[in-house]
Amino acid sequence: MQTDRLQIWTEQGNVIISQLFFHHYKKIGITDSEAMLMMHIIAYSSEGNFFPTPQDLSSRMNLTLDEVSSGLQRMIQKNVLSIVQEIDEKGVLFERFSLMPLWNRLVDCVVVEENQTFTDQKKEEEGEIY
Amino acid sequence: MQTDRLQIWTEQGNVIISQLFFHHYKKIGITDSEAMLMMHIIAYSSEGNFFPTPQDLSSRMNLTLDEVSSGLQRMIQKNVLSIVQEIDEKGVLFERFSLMPLWNRLVDCVVVEENQTFTDQKKEEEGEIY
Amino acid sequence: MQTDRLQIWTEQGNVIISQLFFHHYKKIGITDSEAMLMMHIIAYSSEGNFFPTPQDLSSRMNLTLDEVSSGLQRMIQKNVLSIVQEIDEKGVLFERFSLMPLWNRLVDCVVVEENQTFTDQKKEEEGEIY
Amino acid sequence: MQTDRLQIWTEQGNVIISQLFFHHYKKIGITDSEAMLMMHIIAYSSEGNFFPTPQDLSSRMNLTLDEVSSGLQRMIQKNVLSIVQEIDEKGVLFERFSLMPLWNRLVDCVVVEENQTFTDQKKEEEGEIY
Repeated sequence: MQTDRLQIWTEQGNVIISQLFFHHYKKIGITDSEAMLMMHIIAYSSEGNFFPTPQDLSSRMNLTLDEVSSGLQRMIQKNVLSIVQEIDEKGVLFERFSLMPLWNRLVDCVVVEENQTFTDQKKEEEGEIY
Repeated sequence: MQTDRLQIWTEQGNVIISQLFFHHYKKIGITDSEAMLMMHIIAYSSEGNFFPTPQDLSSRMNLTLDEVSSGLQRMIQKNVLSIVQEIDEKGVLFERFSLMPLWNRLVDCVVVEENQTFTDQKKEEEGEIY
Repeated sequence: MQTDRLQIWTEQGNVIISQLFFHHYKKIGITDSEAMLMMHIIAYSSEGNFFPTPQDLSSRMNLTLDEVSSGLQRMIQKNVLSIVQEIDEKGVLFERFSLMPLWNRLVDCVVVEENQTFTDQKKEEEGEIY
Repeated sequence: MQTDRLQIWTEQGNVIISQLFFHHYKKIGITDSEAMLMMHIIAYSSEGNFFPTPQDLSSRMNLTLDEVSSGLQRMIQKNVLSIVQEIDEKGVLFERFSLMPLWNRLVDCVVVEENQTFTDQKKEEEGEIY
C-alpha cells in the first residue's frame, strides 16, 4: 500500500550533521573510518543514547569490537571526542560522550580560513598601495 | 567574540540523514567505506551539487580517485545508487545521482522486519491455540 | 565564554519540517494559526512527547486553552490531524497524534500539480499537431 | 505507484529549526503570527532565497501584503530580525535578512535560566548552612 512506505519513512527519526563536518574532518586529521564511527555516535545520541557501547557501535558497522575501542581511544587522543560526567534529575552521576571538542575544532577551521582570507586581502591592498 | 563562533555555526548548512541509513546499511551489504562515500554524496546534494565528480569526493576523503570511482561503480552494481537523466528549465539534459534505490532498499528492510514480527506473532498465537 | 553559547546551541534538539508544509499548507485550507499549532505538535513529537495536552501547547503560544482545543478539533475535522491508538512495549494502549493525514494531503498537492503540468504539456503538444 | 509518493517526499528539501525557537519565542515577545512569518523567512532561506519579498511571504500565508510588511517592521524594532548588507563573489552589494539577532536572544534565554538555577541552588545551599 502506498501510504505504508511513506509512513515508514516519516516515522523514522533523522540525524542532522553540520556541513562543517563533511567539509573539514579530513583537515583536522580524522580518517574516513573514524568519521563513520563519529557519525554513528551522533546517530545514537539523536535517539537518546548518549553513551553507546563498543558493542552498540560494532553491531551497525563493519568494525570489530577491538577496532571500535581503539578508534574511540584515538579520537579522544586527537581531542575530537571526550567523555564527560553529568548528573541526572535524580542526582545520579552518569557518563556520556561529548562532541564539543569536535564542533570547536571544526569552527576553528573556519576562523583560521577567514583570518587567512582577511590577511591575503590586506596584503593585496597594501601591495596595491606601495 | 562570542557571537562570531555561534554565527559561523548557524550559517553553515546541515545534512539530514534518516536513521534508516545508520540502522540498516550494513544489512543491505554496504561497507563502512561505501557508507561514508554515500554520505558525502548526500552532503554535496544538500549544497545543490547533485553530481559531484570523483575529484570532489576524493578531496574531502582519504580515498584516492581510483578508490572513489570503483566505490561508485560497486554501489551502482549493488543497486543502492543510480545515475538518472533530467531536463533543466532551459530544456538541457543533465545527469545526477539518485539515491532512490538506497531509500527503497532501506524501507524494504523495515517492511521485511515488520512482516517477520507479524508472522512470529501469528505463529505464537496459533501455537497457543493448538 | 565563547564555547558556552555554541554549546548551548548545539545541545538543543532540532525540529525538521518538510518544505512541502511551508509551500502547500495554505492550499489545503490550513490557517497560519493552525499551522503554528501544527508545528508545535511536531516540535513536541521531536522531543518524544507524541500527545501534548492543550496546556502544553498553550504554554508556548499566545492561544488560550479553548483556542488550542478548538484548533485541534478543527484540524481533525479538516482531516489534517488524527488521534491514533498504539500499544507500547508493555502491552499498554496509549493515544498519540498522527500527522500522516497531513503528510498525505501535502504529497497529494504535488501529485495534482504534476498531473496538471503533464496534462498541460500534452494539450500543448496536441495543439501543435492539429 | 508506491515509489512515487516516497520519491516526492524525499526529493523535497527540509527546514531545520532549533527547539530553542519553539521553547522561547513567546518569552522574548514574539507573537504566534510573527513566529509563523519568521519560519517562512527561515523556509525561504533554506531554499537559497535570503531576502524574500512581502509578496513571496504573503503568497504562502493568510496575511495581506500590509500585514507582512508591518510584521517585518515590528520584528526589526523588537530586535529579532535585521537586514544586513553583503558582497557576493562578483563584488556586488546585496541585502539579506539576518536571523542572528533572534538566535542570540534565544541563547540569552537559556543563559538567564541557567544563571537563575545556579543562583537558586546557591541560595538553597547557603540557606542550609546558616
